[in-house]
Amino acid sequence: MEEGDSNNEESHIKATRFRNLPSVTSLSQEELIITTQNDSDLLSSIRRRVQISSEKIETGSLNVLSAKYESLDYDTCENYLLLDEERKKGYKFIVRKSIARWFIFLLIGMITALIACAIDISIEELSQLKYASLSKYVDQYVTQGKLYIPYFLWVLYNIIPVLIGSTLVAYVEPVAAGSGIPQVKCYLNGVKIPRVVRIKTLFVKSVGVVCSVVGGLAGGKEGPMIHSGAVVAAGISQGKSTTFRKDFKILKYFREDHEKRDFVSGGAAAGVSAAFGAPVGGVLFSLEEGTSFWNQSLTWRTFFASVISTFTLNVVLSTYHGVPGDLSYPGLLNLGRFENFSYQIYELPIFLIMGALGGLLGAMWNHINYKLSVFRMRYIRMRWLKVVEACMVAAVSATLGFLMMFMLNDCKPLGQDPTKYPTQLYCQDGQYNVLASIWFQTPEASVRSLFHDPPNTHNAASLTAFVIVYFLLSCWTFGLATSNGLFIPMLLTGAAWGRLIAVGLSLILSDNLLIHPGKYALIGAAAQLGGVVRMTISLTVIIMETTGNISFALPLIITLIAAKWTGDFFNEGIYDIHIQLSGVPLLPWEPPPLVHNIYASEVMSHPVVTLKCVENVGHIVELLKLASYNGFPVVDPPLTDQTEVTTYGRIRGLILRSQLIVILKRKIFNETSDEWDDINVGIFRDAYPRYSTIEQVDVTEEEKTYSIDLRPFMNPSPYTVLHSASLPRMFRLFRALGLRHLPIVNDTNEVIGMVTRKDLARYRVWRHQGRMGVEELLISKEI
Amino acid sequence: MEEGDSNNEESHIKATRFRNLPSVTSLSQEELIITTQNDSDLLSSIRRRVQISSEKIETGSLNVLSAKYESLDYDTCENYLLLDEERKKGYKFIVRKSIARWFIFLLIGMITALIACAIDISIEELSQLKYASLSKYVDQYVTQGKLYIPYFLWVLYNIIPVLIGSTLVAYVEPVAAGSGIPQVKCYLNGVKIPRVVRIKTLFVKSVGVVCSVVGGLAGGKEGPMIHSGAVVAAGISQGKSTTFRKDFKILKYFREDHEKRDFVSGGAAAGVSAAFGAPVGGVLFSLEEGTSFWNQSLTWRTFFASVISTFTLNVVLSTYHGVPGDLSYPGLLNLGRFENFSYQIYELPIFLIMGALGGLLGAMWNHINYKLSVFRMRYIRMRWLKVVEACMVAAVSATLGFLMMFMLNDCKPLGQDPTKYPTQLYCQDGQYNVLASIWFQTPEASVRSLFHDPPNTHNAASLTAFVIVYFLLSCWTFGLATSNGLFIPMLLTGAAWGRLIAVGLSLILSDNLLIHPGKYALIGAAAQLGGVVRMTISLTVIIMETTGNISFALPLIITLIAAKWTGDFFNEGIYDIHIQLSGVPLLPWEPPPLVHNIYASEVMSHPVVTLKCVENVGHIVELLKLASYNGFPVVDPPLTDQTEVTTYGRIRGLILRSQLIVILKRKIFNETSDEWDDINVGIFRDAYPRYSTIEQVDVTEEEKTYSIDLRPFMNPSPYTVLHSASLPRMFRLFRALGLRHLPIVNDTNEVIGMVTRKDLARYRVWRHQGRMGVEELLISKEI
Repeated sequence: MEEGDSNNEESHIKATRFRNLPSVTSLSQEELIITTQNDSDLLSSIRRRVQISSEKIETGSLNVLSAKYESLDYDTCENYLLLDEERKKGYKFIVRKSIARWFIFLLIGMITALIACAIDISIEELSQLKYASLSKYVDQYVTQGKLYIPYFLWVLYNIIPVLIGSTLVAYVEPVAAGSGIPQVKCYLNGVKIPRVVRIKTLFVKSVGVVCSVVGGLAGGKEGPMIHSGAVVAAGISQGKSTTFRKDFKILKYFREDHEKRDFVSGGAAAGVSAAFGAPVGGVLFSLEEGTSFWNQSLTWRTFFASVISTFTLNVVLSTYHGVPGDLSYPGLLNLGRFENFSYQIYELPIFLIMGALGGLLGAMWNHINYKLSVFRMRYIRMRWLKVVEACMVAAVSATLGFLMMFMLNDCKPLGQDPTKYPTQLYCQDGQYNVLASIWFQTPEASVRSLFHDPPNTHNAASLTAFVIVYFLLSCWTFGLATSNGLFIPMLLTGAAWGRLIAVGLSLILSDNLLIHPGKYALIGAAAQLGGVVRMTISLTVIIMETTGNISFALPLIITLIAAKWTGDFFNEGIYDIHIQLSGVPLLPWEPPPLVHNIYASEVMSHPVVTLKCVENVGHIVELLKLASYNGFPVVDPPLTDQTEVTTYGRIRGLILRSQLIVILKRKIFNETSDEWDDINVGIFRDAYPRYSTIEQVDVTEEEKTYSIDLRPFMNPSPYTVLHSASLPRMFRLFRALGLRHLPIVNDTNEVIGMVTRKDLARYRVWRHQGRMGVEELLISKEI
Repeated sequence: MEEGDSNNEESHIKATRFRNLPSVTSLSQEELIITTQNDSDLLSSIRRRVQISSEKIETGSLNVLSAKYESLDYDTCENYLLLDEERKKGYKFIVRKSIARWFIFLLIGMITALIACAIDISIEELSQLKYASLSKYVDQYVTQGKLYIPYFLWVLYNIIPVLIGSTLVAYVEPVAAGSGIPQVKCYLNGVKIPRVVRIKTLFVKSVGVVCSVVGGLAGGKEGPMIHSGAVVAAGISQGKSTTFRKDFKILKYFREDHEKRDFVSGGAAAGVSAAFGAPVGGVLFSLEEGTSFWNQSLTWRTFFASVISTFTLNVVLSTYHGVPGDLSYPGLLNLGRFENFSYQIYELPIFLIMGALGGLLGAMWNHINYKLSVFRMRYIRMRWLKVVEACMVAAVSATLGFLMMFMLNDCKPLGQDPTKYPTQLYCQDGQYNVLASIWFQTPEASVRSLFHDPPNTHNAASLTAFVIVYFLLSCWTFGLATSNGLFIPMLLTGAAWGRLIAVGLSLILSDNLLIHPGKYALIGAAAQLGGVVRMTISLTVIIMETTGNISFALPLIITLIAAKWTGDFFNEGIYDIHIQLSGVPLLPWEPPPLVHNIYASEVMSHPVVTLKCVENVGHIVELLKLASYNGFPVVDPPLTDQTEVTTYGRIRGLILRSQLIVILKRKIFNETSDEWDDINVGIFRDAYPRYSTIEQVDVTEEEKTYSIDLRPFMNPSPYTVLHSASLPRMFRLFRALGLRHLPIVNDTNEVIGMVTRKDLARYRVWRHQGRMGVEELLISKEI
């Protein structure tokens, strides 16, 4: 089932035999596999591709697509059963469905927020315990010269939670590793990533993120919150829980890929909204990362879920902070409120340069992380090794932090400090160690400090050391077998070097110009994050919303444009690098340029397995076992019996593997089932989304001689294009309508090939060092 | 040319003759029009539709589509010439084009903002002169009992600018009337509204809006600013000015509907951004109103233009306000900064009720305005009558304002009042007349007052009177032959009744609950505006941005959902009502529900005029003269010569009327032109967008015997669907890809019909009073 649409050499070659067989009834498998001479032409193109892809694929290649990913079906199958249902239901049903939809979005917003609250509060409470104890022990043992005691304690405090978190991730649910944003992005793009929206993933992700943040890793909780939102949406919208034995009738109409994907985009938005308090940013995130076409009502519902999410979060957190009901409490903004900042026009070029610097640093970060990921793919394959690596990073994080506060004795007077646990260390009485205050809190709190601490809180040396250490540490952390995102570490790195630039500028410029370091920290943070993730409009709006500052749009947009362009000169965004590493066939926004001369006949994979309108059961079963395809054109086979057949017959419809399996399981055979009353579109919804495999279907030998009329089940008018259609034309059709299969027909409307997502995703534009071109990727089963 | 795609009875019937003619060389027109018997079948369907539409259409019907609107071509014509150009240009060209695109968006943002500044400052300066003088005269003559003098002065001050404005609109450019938002919405939806993006329209619009606001009409400047942005974008992007005799080479590649529409969406966003200081809202506006699919890079550029627009506006206006360079100056937000507001959870139900009230009032407003518009369509058809009506409204506005401040003696002590010209009237010394302060300023300033004036500034009686008067006045004003929008009047009406509710609430509730009237004014304003325009996410964000308050998202979204749902129960939004009144075939976001059983064979208009690959010149000329179609399938005609032909032959491509005209004008005939070097895709760009009509093309009798090879020019692989495709399936294809023509083919890929925008827009869902259904609209040439 998870094997993909095409490019399975063996089954390809086997499957291609069928198209010449008149009406196979009970041929044995051996008979089916006999190779005839005149198939050689048809096979040439597959052979070519198979030859290429059977070359040894180098680990970590970015130019290979994995054959294992399937597409989601966004196109509605308008078969007879659906029409039948429509006739029966009428408009009242449409209204009820619409109300149910709104209600689900309300629930998505609320539950996502509640999960976010649980994560938030757990992290805050546990971190407070941890850092209060550490701060106390440092000051207690420093006088005795026994600093190794708090150091080991710190290492221990880091390793224990990380051990729990990484064990969960490595052994229970590996797809919960990392931020989850690449996975959500792929899902919204239309790629089915196995297990990404399961409830188990949600559990591991939530516990894992608390563990890794409390464990002091250089990671944030934002990415996981977005992923949580997506899982919540996918879960709730299906209205079926095996755990609670509950099946909401009305919700069963949402059991299809189309509806589910719409809900997931709402959930992702609610997640962003909960993570950053940015409802508009959430909507834009889910548009930017996923949706291929703008739909007013979906966007409006998504926005509703986002707003409900922020609202619920604020109600709970304002109660937690002791100001119940005060929803305008600025502490609810994660990064603190930027209010009285303004910028001057002469500062814009500085922001531009900072953006470019961010792009440069981001590209460097991405490159290091890429190399590291390749190393991990090669050598850290065992589960226990992954856990060990995570614990090692936790220990090193503690060690580096300890060394910094030990060696750089940056002291500032108490009083102007926002930290909860000022640590004195070697400072004089009435002073506190600045670096301890950065390290002895969550990364998020440190970002807040760097944004809002008064000028001169941090000196240049400690900032420089911190930037270098945190840059490398965050790079090492991303990709570990732990659940954590990179928004906060990148903001922290950027804020630190932004503040460093402010320190430098105030030295260079005359004193009467006030350089507010917080402003530069914000720009630096945006630049660094933008340089790494390369998001555009949603990132701008998220930063605007999370700092409560609307008038800062221009500096942010200038910074982010500069960061994106500089970074794109060297490599892709970090999410795209990881997506390419796993070989996911993501479709970009637009077709590659200058490929109007590539035609459907070149792009399509062309031995196609077709079915007749009324087909023999045994034939279908054999086909499903041999071919790994997921969609089969239904055709009128060509009348002529000549040996050189180049087409598969006139197209009548398209049927999916999942539909065939449901039909076989329900035994809807012409010979046995007279009652059509029980058969409705619901039988497919009941089986969604975990269809049986063909091996799980029992068909007796007698039943194999029966036949199935596919016409009531198939999609009777799939989108098709002529063999002379260009690549961009197919691409736009695919992207705009969310297709999974696109049959290619000849001049007389006879099927000659099939285009799937992978066939289109293979043509990719590259754009490095100012040059540009189109490359053709390989498709491999190895990665 | 402007006649539309189909449904021209006469030319239909004539044109249909051609398909049986082998290769017409020089048949006279009489010969072509002879009716043969066996065409009767083919004609039956047109006859039916023509009969329907030749019924007398009642003026003001909302169920008729006009035949006069054409579609834009969003689909790229991938002909031989384009491929040729691509081969020659290479990737460097793509990069240069991308840079040019960014530069154009920069210019769009800047110029839109500068025009907005000019409008803003003109209105402010002229209004100050007007109201300062009026205020002075009132206080001067009130003691003498000669109040008729300032009254007549006021009427005069109103009538003169309105006379100028409405004369310009009525006589120079009628398309500049109203807010322009419906027109921009249609353009972005893909409908070509004649003259809507011309430079003359921009001029009339800009001068007109200054005149009508200074003339004291109940209208705002926001809608016209959005329209201005759209015109600026369309103008700049074409890089060709006949006035300045300048032709930027690189920009000529943007001379096609696809690119132009993208730029216009950026321009509309920049317009919103300039009008409200809402860059994010601008982007969302242009997405919500227009774009059918989300494109990351286009949206990012749009956002850039929006931000540049706000920035430029702020730079100019901060200088004008005497605080140059201070871009965070709150005076730059049109509606003032809402800062220290917070809401309590128990207030949310109140907001919900206010939203419903807004929806109710909005629906009522829309209904009155609809009736008024129908009246205008029937009786106010002469230009001078339109001017007279506008002047009358101006006089009545002054009269009502005068009566109100004369009769309701609402006095408040001086000092807490934000108005510039406090008018004493009958008040005691040290007090001022509150109603005079509302009337003696621009509506925008009045909204600001109602939002931010301290509690108890206005008493209940004066607010009630003001709401009633302004509600009716704004309703009368919208639809006049003047350039003005309805955002500000609706905000003003809503703010007034919102404040009224706050007054009521503070009476009912105990005193210790502080009911801040400004907050209720804001909610009321959102409710009223939402109830009238029924916009969703963009309106929420615009209000959030224009008041500088991010945490108010939830109250706003609750209010707007309630307003939209309540309003939608009764009628459509005001823009949609006006669009329906003009019979524009707008395509909604989604296909109507439950129409999967309507098939392409029923929807298509089916005598199609087809051409052969190599076609006779005389034939083409006659065809273009007789048929009003804009797209012609190119086919291999059926080989059989039998009389009962049901298809037009196998499809080979699609060619547009505009392409044929360019080919004829350039005389690219097989017999005469050997040199293909001069012929490139540029010849079509040079003629864009004002193609000649067929009457302007000179073809000699000898040339009529020549032939044209259409293959290098036609689109060789247009999207087609089978006759069995359902309406939703065609709709999605059309909407997502921005098509103009969709040939319908039979099982063997032979053309049997054609679907255009009007054929799809005819099926419309209605949803009133809780019921729902699908209706089929008429298509008429009368409106």
